[in-house]
Amino acid sequence: MIDWGAVADQRLAELAQISEPASNQDGDQKGSNQGVTRLPFTREHRAALTLLESWMLKAGLSVRLDDAGTLIGRQAGPRGAATLLMGSHQDSVRNGGAYDGIMGVLLPLMALEKLAHEGVKLPFAVEILAFADEEGVRFPTALMGPRALAGSFDPAALDMQDNKGQSLQQAMQEFGLNPVAIPSLRRDASQILGYVETHIEQGPVLEQSGQALGVVTAICGIERHQVSLIGQTGHAGTLPMKGRRDALVAAAALISEVNRIACASDELRGTVGALQLWPGVVNAVPQQVNLTIELRSPDDGEREQAGQALQAFAGRIAEQHGLNLKMVRSYQQAAQACDTAMTAKLASAVQATGNQGLRLPSGATHDASAMADLCPIAMLFVRCKEGVSHAPEEEASPADMGAAIDALCHFLHHYPSQL
Amino acid sequence: MIDWGAVADQRLAELAQISEPASNQDGDQKGSNQGVTRLPFTREHRAALTLLESWMLKAGLSVRLDDAGTLIGRQAGPRGAATLLMGSHQDSVRNGGAYDGIMGVLLPLMALEKLAHEGVKLPFAVEILAFADEEGVRFPTALMGPRALAGSFDPAALDMQDNKGQSLQQAMQEFGLNPVAIPSLRRDASQILGYVETHIEQGPVLEQSGQALGVVTAICGIERHQVSLIGQTGHAGTLPMKGRRDALVAAAALISEVNRIACASDELRGTVGALQLWPGVVNAVPQQVNLTIELRSPDDGEREQAGQALQAFAGRIAEQHGLNLKMVRSYQQAAQACDTAMTAKLASAVQATGNQGLRLPSGATHDASAMADLCPIAMLFVRCKEGVSHAPEEEASPADMGAAIDALCHFLHHYPSQL
Repeated sequence: MIDWGAVADQRLAELAQISEPASNQDGDQKGSNQGVTRLPFTREHRAALTLLESWMLKAGLSVRLDDAGTLIGRQAGPRGAATLLMGSHQDSVRNGGAYDGIMGVLLPLMALEKLAHEGVKLPFAVEILAFADEEGVRFPTALMGPRALAGSFDPAALDMQDNKGQSLQQAMQEFGLNPVAIPSLRRDASQILGYVETHIEQGPVLEQSGQALGVVTAICGIERHQVSLIGQTGHAGTLPMKGRRDALVAAAALISEVNRIACASDELRGTVGALQLWPGVVNAVPQQVNLTIELRSPDDGEREQAGQALQAFAGRIAEQHGLNLKMVRSYQQAAQACDTAMTAKLASAVQATGNQGLRLPSGATHDASAMADLCPIAMLFVRCKEGVSHAPEEEASPADMGAAIDALCHFLHHYPSQL
Repeated sequence: MIDWGAVADQRLAELAQISEPASNQDGDQKGSNQGVTRLPFTREHRAALTLLESWMLKAGLSVRLDDAGTLIGRQAGPRGAATLLMGSHQDSVRNGGAYDGIMGVLLPLMALEKLAHEGVKLPFAVEILAFADEEGVRFPTALMGPRALAGSFDPAALDMQDNKGQSLQQAMQEFGLNPVAIPSLRRDASQILGYVETHIEQGPVLEQSGQALGVVTAICGIERHQVSLIGQTGHAGTLPMKGRRDALVAAAALISEVNRIACASDELRGTVGALQLWPGVVNAVPQQVNLTIELRSPDDGEREQAGQALQAFAGRIAEQHGLNLKMVRSYQQAAQACDTAMTAKLASAVQATGNQGLRLPSGATHDASAMADLCPIAMLFVRCKEGVSHAPEEEASPADMGAAIDALCHFLHHYPSQL
């Protein structure tokens, strides 16, 4: 009997070998784990696709690379049947882990392998997708693969450059792609059953709940604010407390309020992640603080309300401390709800593996966010150790990956050929 | 009739010309006011002393330079009479103002000039002191001049280097001094009536009170704490609020508490002036925050109690957020009370000029702090514009300086030859 989880573990270890060599800067850390660095349209990207292709072929899929750099392994269905899409991304962050993205390509492929092994024939076609770039590390853009399929790719991104001055277009051409053809990759939504993405949770919820698997309710919307509080500096000894215009004291109140608002909600997450202050010396009253606020929620209304409440709070606190306030919403992205029917099927499949089918929002963005413009989406989360991701220590256990393969098999086996 | 304040203003403008030329980095700011940069044991120090000496000689004083670099202008008293010391420092910070320090040398000199002009003879000797280095900008030490007089100078400081690698000892030797002789500069306390320092307030209290002059009650004690709060980072989207170990949220509570405790007291000043955080990106929960706390008070007991309360608060907040806390008191300096009797005489002199004789602590340290080890001290504060100091915009008005000269004349005229 094949231990599918163990095979997945072994294959991911093989894929993890495909990584940029450690940089010279890390020369004195030779012995330590540098993790995986696999950027899009590189020698490492090519090597990973070659390995994935070999497994796709072994599983009986037909394989091609589309002009957005997405490797597609297709298992044909009955004549005229629609197609279910499954997959994730091949790329990693710098010094990232062996699971983020790539595991979501491998596990559905292995589910197909396992079903074939068991002699199951599906009433629809399945395509396993390995997108080129979800992390956006090399170029200041991402999600090109799913956007190409959904018809939402903006060709302006092709002019963006990496830090060596090479444009995305040049990099793709050198990789053997024809980016001009991207608009033709748009799929006919009527032929697509949906998109299922498998991913490590990147958080601690499943681990804390004792669950190997979970089902995503929605991918959180995001908004980010750039806040500047500008007061007046002065000698920390000679300036009385009364009448101070201390930007950091006001910032502290705002940081506490971000945390208070987010903690008061079940699903809202609020973080002040970056903060700088001037002049920044022990004996001077802080004149200026710049900080960022990030809010995420599966509920756009809740998130936007929180953003407005914080804007109002910052205005009051600035007035109270005699400060000038600049607060700009620098980024926003709407939440993407997962498809209710498809998610229910996925939850049943998870329950069939002995897990509860715990539902949770995804705080991180995924390829599925862009695929939602094409078709219904659903996401399967796999428990990861201590919630760690984007780091060499990232880890999902062979047993949990085996459970994920079982759940995907159950899902595929019981999925209707039409929704 | 001589307008003594106007003469002081003119002389300070002349002294302000004696400054390092603006650095190349400021080449594009040619037209702007670069302020005064006059560091110890430099060509500028020498030029300032030459100018001061000319005015001291004009006032009938005998002049010498001691081996700590202190210019001393002495007006003899009756045979066997004790000596009253008055003065401040000649040096400035980089791009500082025209008043900090040097004004406290010039005004008592002009008070002697004025008394001589009026034919007043004092029953004691007076020495006007221009100390070399109070700001500690060139070498990581300061207050050498007053420490030499008080016998508290630590010769280890002579090995300290400036940013060009020259030692203090070398710099002093090149200036024509014999630093080995410093221990012999110690004064016999029984021959010293006291030390009176005149200085701009460097804060807004006198201006806000509509007073030209004020009298210092004490030079505040200082303590500084280095605080590290260490939690755990994580993805700002995937990490639920519950169970976060966010170092910045805890730091915010501590910043608010420093401010709350200081605002609850009349004289305590509490400032978080520097703060760094890691990893410091918009979408990551802050793992670590390092910050500084500075507390100042004329009352050491109050200051130490506040420091202990903040230590306890930081411990509770760290525990509450699951953080490791490192909090070290990195610096402390006791408060120096001004002499009660001498301060009362100075306050009477201030009242004789039509001011209230407002009493206030000095949040900044002065040469008087070190002189307190030798003799009773008193300090006269002069109102400065908008509380600004250590900047080109530093300003005291001719009228206020005239009032200060009058107050010093009154003080000298009515000061007993023995306390």
